[in-house]
Amino acid sequence: MNLSQFNREIAEIRGDRVHGASELARRCLTILAEAAKILPATDGVEFRQYLLALAAELAMTRPSMAPVGHLLRRWRAEMSVADGDLDLDWLRRFAVERATALVALSRQAVSDCAVHAAHWLGPGRTLMTHSLSSTVLETCRLLKDQGLQMIVTESRPLIEGRRVVERLSTWNVPTTYITDAQMGVFVGQADGVLVGADSLLSDGSVVNKAGTVLLALAAREYGVPFYVCCESFKQRAAGEAPPVLEEMASSELEVPAWPGVSVRNIYFDITPARLINAWISETGVRRAVALS
Amino acid sequence: MNLSQFNREIAEIRGDRVHGASELARRCLTILAEAAKILPATDGVEFRQYLLALAAELAMTRPSMAPVGHLLRRWRAEMSVADGDLDLDWLRRFAVERATALVALSRQAVSDCAVHAAHWLGPGRTLMTHSLSSTVLETCRLLKDQGLQMIVTESRPLIEGRRVVERLSTWNVPTTYITDAQMGVFVGQADGVLVGADSLLSDGSVVNKAGTVLLALAAREYGVPFYVCCESFKQRAAGEAPPVLEEMASSELEVPAWPGVSVRNIYFDITPARLINAWISETGVRRAVALS
Repeated sequence: MNLSQFNREIAEIRGDRVHGASELARRCLTILAEAAKILPATDGVEFRQYLLALAAELAMTRPSMAPVGHLLRRWRAEMSVADGDLDLDWLRRFAVERATALVALSRQAVSDCAVHAAHWLGPGRTLMTHSLSSTVLETCRLLKDQGLQMIVTESRPLIEGRRVVERLSTWNVPTTYITDAQMGVFVGQADGVLVGADSLLSDGSVVNKAGTVLLALAAREYGVPFYVCCESFKQRAAGEAPPVLEEMASSELEVPAWPGVSVRNIYFDITPARLINAWISETGVRRAVALS
Repeated sequence: MNLSQFNREIAEIRGDRVHGASELARRCLTILAEAAKILPATDGVEFRQYLLALAAELAMTRPSMAPVGHLLRRWRAEMSVADGDLDLDWLRRFAVERATALVALSRQAVSDCAVHAAHWLGPGRTLMTHSLSSTVLETCRLLKDQGLQMIVTESRPLIEGRRVVERLSTWNVPTTYITDAQMGVFVGQADGVLVGADSLLSDGSVVNKAGTVLLALAAREYGVPFYVCCESFKQRAAGEAPPVLEEMASSELEVPAWPGVSVRNIYFDITPARLINAWISETGVRRAVALS
């Protein structure tokens, strides 16, 4: 992998509107593994320095998505441990092996998360979701033959709700598909709301696709419990800076350039912890202290 | 106007996604005036019976829009008063004159509403709105040279927010245009939310474009006051049946027909009175008893 290929990968991850936070974090690790296999280097010190710089750059691509920073920090930390032995060939294999192991760990966490969520929610439920979350989709897969029904929002601007509904349709899960604006009309028909997250703040607040806080407010208004399902890799540490809410190209809204009009396209919002009834991770379910 | 022309008009009003409730109510009155001018009839009794039947049919076209029923009921009541004098020519002129007077009354009410709203809101405000309301637009026109700034949602599925923004742009009002899903991200930047209404229920709850209740919940969450601005023709009487929330063609969401997936397109939602800080009508401003 040369520099221009790497820059192309960076640009693709930065511009990706299709994959969730965990998938992009795994993509970053896979890129590092690829780079580790083929990066030209004269010795281990130079090789590791170069790889760590690539990892640092990848870690900054998606500031709203905690797992990207988290898994890459972990990989970098593991690479530092290998300080005593900087044999180039060994280091190549070690870098690939650690990246591959973290990818597997991330996948396992998503899968364990969904197992806990499916068990917690139980059979015969109507659930509502917003945006595309691989953890939520995996939960739906586990519940698909247990009377699950879904209500799915389109999730503007790029309408990833369609991809959720396509999958649910192939699993024969009876599904209702609505505009984001209809959240308030339909949430009362759900037994619960289940969303993923891009980041989980240390106080339990959730950074997720714009519109999530509206769904949480509507769920509270109509007395429907609101659950967040995400791996612990999405947790931000208490001391971390507040998350940057990424803004994407305004062209995604497909409107003309009117004079004096600023078209905004912020992708994420923050749902305060007090609107959340339970957090589901790979280690289990944590309920809010006072369920309302 | 013959029956097939009238049926075409009825179908157009039923399918109209572009005009607000007051505009469509005036359109109904204008159709009645046109019909009154040219309807073939042998005598006044037959003529009035026919006209009243047309009015009854028009009144049922848009159940979510109170002014349609309200203004047509008023016109029908005025036509009944003329019971003593059923001279055909006189009745034709009278029907046209009453319809025209009610159209003028409706326009005046919208205009007076906007005057009260502009006075209440005052100069130098940033306001947020959802959907297209002629009353809100008129308020913006009155405030356009007084430092007004606007935040406007696109309002899916047919994105009438674009029409609002086009108008604001020609008035040089600095405007931010967002997806409906970003309401929660931007409402905190507004000094107040101002929306119109399709109907006002007797308890002060508001029927308006789907998404309005989400904006009201977000406004309450971020401590931003929420105002409803509409003429008294939109008020439903205490005894009236609860409003039907009209559903339009699911094709407006432009998604494929997935097996097992029901695509829903309910156009309206209900915002409970307790989320509203003030109601502005042509007679003035009524504040909520306890402003929060």
